[in-house]
Amino acid sequence: MSTPLTVGNSRVKDARKLSRRSVRTERRLFLADGPKAVEGALSAVSHSGESCVVEVFVTPQAAERHVDLLAGADVTLVDDRAMAGLSDSVSPAGLVAVCRFIDVPLRDLLVTSSPPLVICADVRDPGNAGTIIRTADAVGAGGVVLTGHSVDLYNPKTVRASVGSLFHLPLAVVPDTAAAVAAIRAAGMGVLAADGAGELDLFEIDEILADQVAWLFGNEAWGLPAEVAALADHRVRIPIPGRAESLNLSTAAAVCLYAGARAARA
Amino acid sequence: MSTPLTVGNSRVKDARKLSRRSVRTERRLFLADGPKAVEGALSAVSHSGESCVVEVFVTPQAAERHVDLLAGADVTLVDDRAMAGLSDSVSPAGLVAVCRFIDVPLRDLLVTSSPPLVICADVRDPGNAGTIIRTADAVGAGGVVLTGHSVDLYNPKTVRASVGSLFHLPLAVVPDTAAAVAAIRAAGMGVLAADGAGELDLFEIDEILADQVAWLFGNEAWGLPAEVAALADHRVRIPIPGRAESLNLSTAAAVCLYAGARAARA
Repeated sequence: MSTPLTVGNSRVKDARKLSRRSVRTERRLFLADGPKAVEGALSAVSHSGESCVVEVFVTPQAAERHVDLLAGADVTLVDDRAMAGLSDSVSPAGLVAVCRFIDVPLRDLLVTSSPPLVICADVRDPGNAGTIIRTADAVGAGGVVLTGHSVDLYNPKTVRASVGSLFHLPLAVVPDTAAAVAAIRAAGMGVLAADGAGELDLFEIDEILADQVAWLFGNEAWGLPAEVAALADHRVRIPIPGRAESLNLSTAAAVCLYAGARAARA
Repeated sequence: MSTPLTVGNSRVKDARKLSRRSVRTERRLFLADGPKAVEGALSAVSHSGESCVVEVFVTPQAAERHVDLLAGADVTLVDDRAMAGLSDSVSPAGLVAVCRFIDVPLRDLLVTSSPPLVICADVRDPGNAGTIIRTADAVGAGGVVLTGHSVDLYNPKTVRASVGSLFHLPLAVVPDTAAAVAAIRAAGMGVLAADGAGELDLFEIDEILADQVAWLFGNEAWGLPAEVAALADHRVRIPIPGRAESLNLSTAAAVCLYAGARAARA
């Protein structure tokens, strides 16, 4: 076995720069950290049809622990200090993959994916974005679209919070929220805006939920501005029988997506 | 108006020490940071019947901005640097309350609270614990019980993630999970363990959910150990029609609690 690369190695240094958004955007590469993410990355195929993994850095201990996961993968050994520099985690699991960007143009997503879809408009917290992608994957959603000033899809915290789901379903990034909503409606889906002041009650719309829908979720602090909520076919409120004023964004998204999963089964 | 206290003031220094769990536990005091938390604290009454707020530190700007919220409260002005030391937030909102502990003995909670209850066993992430408390508050749950090696209820991140809900419903801290579950069952509630391998499907148990239940949620990484899940009356799985292996803990809790809220309405 070759000697593990150290923190000063140029390939390690180069990969490490991918923690910066500007470098990611320029190279169209990002880091997938930890066994779930690396497993997802190794089984995924990028938009252009090639493997989405460029290379996998792994510590000797992690290489031993994850033999099955890494079988067939071209791995590069690094020492613990080099791994600490590559990993976003406080306690790195010992494996990080350099991956090609995997987002696809929205029009491609709309051709290949079936409802429900999820639209995140101006979602700023990487943990929320990753958790919503994970939940969308859990309910079998056809794809997730990040619009407006949403957090970078390839932010290490987004990748981590998705726990591998980032690689399981089509993702698109669209700067113009209104254009994304229009394209999704034109594809025949009804758009439901999650909105605390919505005119419909989530518990009373099973017929709508059983249909072809896309959910539109807004920013964690201010929700959906009225003009964005107005782009949807309906605005749906989650009932709050108790005293909380609102729900956390990723829990609200889970409640909506699971209401849909239940209606689809009935 | 008096001169704002600075970072060197002994009262500010003293309050600042409450960021440490050992100091909180010794003094039975904690910090509530931001307008939602301070508002909740000011409207809450502690276990012993006195106001739960000992004092409120506020910057001159925040005092102006939150006149209504602070009306009638005894506030102490501090400067921005002192506030930065008191606040756990990267961008402090400018008001922090020193509060008495608000948890109650489980036996008291069981006398005063109606179902559903929420039990968090070994929940380690403060954000998850706070978010679960917020969701429990949203569905009108009767209380939340943290058991085992769960995160400190008064961790600043837990308080922040609860967005004021910490002050809205009874909370208990019980080191022995089995004892807590036994007490709750003895009070006439059926305990439902959220468990990916559970024998019941969440979508098919509306009759059970409409009854008096307490939900039992486990650790974010390893869930509920088999011997803890076995303490419950039933183990309930959230269906995962998609490819994700599991759900984030606080989103899973939201899906379970909202399934209950819906069944209760039907």
